[in-house]
Amino acid sequence: MQIDVLTLFPEMFDGVFGASILGKARDKGIVSLQAVNFRAYSGNKHNTVDDYPYGGGGGMVLKAEPVFAAVEDLLGASANLALPKAEATPPAAARPPRVILMCPQGQPFTQAKAEELAQEDRLIFICGHYEGYDERIREHLVTDELSIGDYVLTGGELPAMVMIDSIVRLLPGVLGNESSAVTDSYSTGLLEYPHYTRPASFRGWEVPKVLLSGHHSRIDQWRREQSMLRTLRRRPDLLGEAPLSDKERRWLEQRRLEEQQGAADHGKK
Amino acid sequence: MQIDVLTLFPEMFDGVFGASILGKARDKGIVSLQAVNFRAYSGNKHNTVDDYPYGGGGGMVLKAEPVFAAVEDLLGASANLALPKAEATPPAAARPPRVILMCPQGQPFTQAKAEELAQEDRLIFICGHYEGYDERIREHLVTDELSIGDYVLTGGELPAMVMIDSIVRLLPGVLGNESSAVTDSYSTGLLEYPHYTRPASFRGWEVPKVLLSGHHSRIDQWRREQSMLRTLRRRPDLLGEAPLSDKERRWLEQRRLEEQQGAADHGKK
Repeated sequence: MQIDVLTLFPEMFDGVFGASILGKARDKGIVSLQAVNFRAYSGNKHNTVDDYPYGGGGGMVLKAEPVFAAVEDLLGASANLALPKAEATPPAAARPPRVILMCPQGQPFTQAKAEELAQEDRLIFICGHYEGYDERIREHLVTDELSIGDYVLTGGELPAMVMIDSIVRLLPGVLGNESSAVTDSYSTGLLEYPHYTRPASFRGWEVPKVLLSGHHSRIDQWRREQSMLRTLRRRPDLLGEAPLSDKERRWLEQRRLEEQQGAADHGKK
Repeated sequence: MQIDVLTLFPEMFDGVFGASILGKARDKGIVSLQAVNFRAYSGNKHNTVDDYPYGGGGGMVLKAEPVFAAVEDLLGASANLALPKAEATPPAAARPPRVILMCPQGQPFTQAKAEELAQEDRLIFICGHYEGYDERIREHLVTDELSIGDYVLTGGELPAMVMIDSIVRLLPGVLGNESSAVTDSYSTGLLEYPHYTRPASFRGWEVPKVLLSGHHSRIDQWRREQSMLRTLRRRPDLLGEAPLSDKERRWLEQRRLEEQQGAADHGKK
């Protein structure tokens, strides 16, 4: 997979692209990662890439020209990028690369989106910084507008790193154990159960006895119940979609009623 | 504000802590940022910080000891960190620092949480990597468990950077224009309206005429309507909380019905 990031702050990516999983995936040749400063495509002698907004108001707006020019240069042709949108889906090999805009107004990025993008051969990420984007970038250049969450950041660089990390770890050969990628919390639909490692007693805080019992079916049951309880307490919104048996749903409903009752009793005191 | 990040990959933070807004905030002395490798606190000659999980299963678990030791060393005392949780809220000056665990099972990080954390004097972030955390870290050391979104990442480093960026930009004096921090999309409750800058015609794609009219009240009205429309189309979940007038709610309801009707007519063809 080839990933290019358009940014005015390419140095922000040095530490992240070189370290840990991304660094290893790059060393193994599974992914090529490049941060490109699109200021080089300003097309004017002052190297400006932004300008005042039409209609007035504060802030600056990223100009369409440098962003179009950078993407087209990366693709090695000044093809009319708006064209493929209107056509029927071409075969995978001829499919144009996804051009992804980092944007607070975008569609929320999810694990399903990471899995979808992990199927592509080429991704281009566009990162703005403080400024808005000229609307014609959205309308005629990008294929996806994505947001990593409902909080305000100073630029699209960190969201691009987050998406790239979650996509690249899904590529075959990146994680040491192929199964690691699918046994994570969101893949089971429940939050993870509590983990413990040595020492068995730390400052007087003990590991739950069942984990030391060597009784595997009881350990599995304890872990499953802890996963369900934690999801109930912290993220009940996930339970609707979680694959639970009828028996598990009844067990969980009982726990929910008990906890409600406990809270009500506590309120009376 | 003083921010320390505990991580096994401190080099990942170099580019991000030095660049852009975070770099400027640091240069101005508004924030002190430090990435600390907690492997230095392993307390054993092999420098191991993780171990196999009690009860079996794949993956490794971060040990409690190095993480407790690193936090206590940063705080300059081996105080019983679990104590303050049970007490009444002490005055701000005596309040213990927030110790924040990066964790997929955590509470979702939001703009409201960024604003809350921006009031603190000291924050400590704990980043795991692939592994789980020994549960005693959650139970007896941390004050907050936070997640930036429902997607799987290889570690807590990128989430910590995201949170730090969104918190630091809220500190007084960090953004050039003090008002910039409050006029962002999520602060108005609506998505931003489209922006345009020069040229007025780019590859035949024109800027909307109203923005060139110089008629400010019409421009304001167009922008407000575009914000409402974009929110309706992309994030209708935000509209319930958005501060809209009754007239605006009626206007928006009318648009919603028109678009439904348009989609239904389109379906018939």
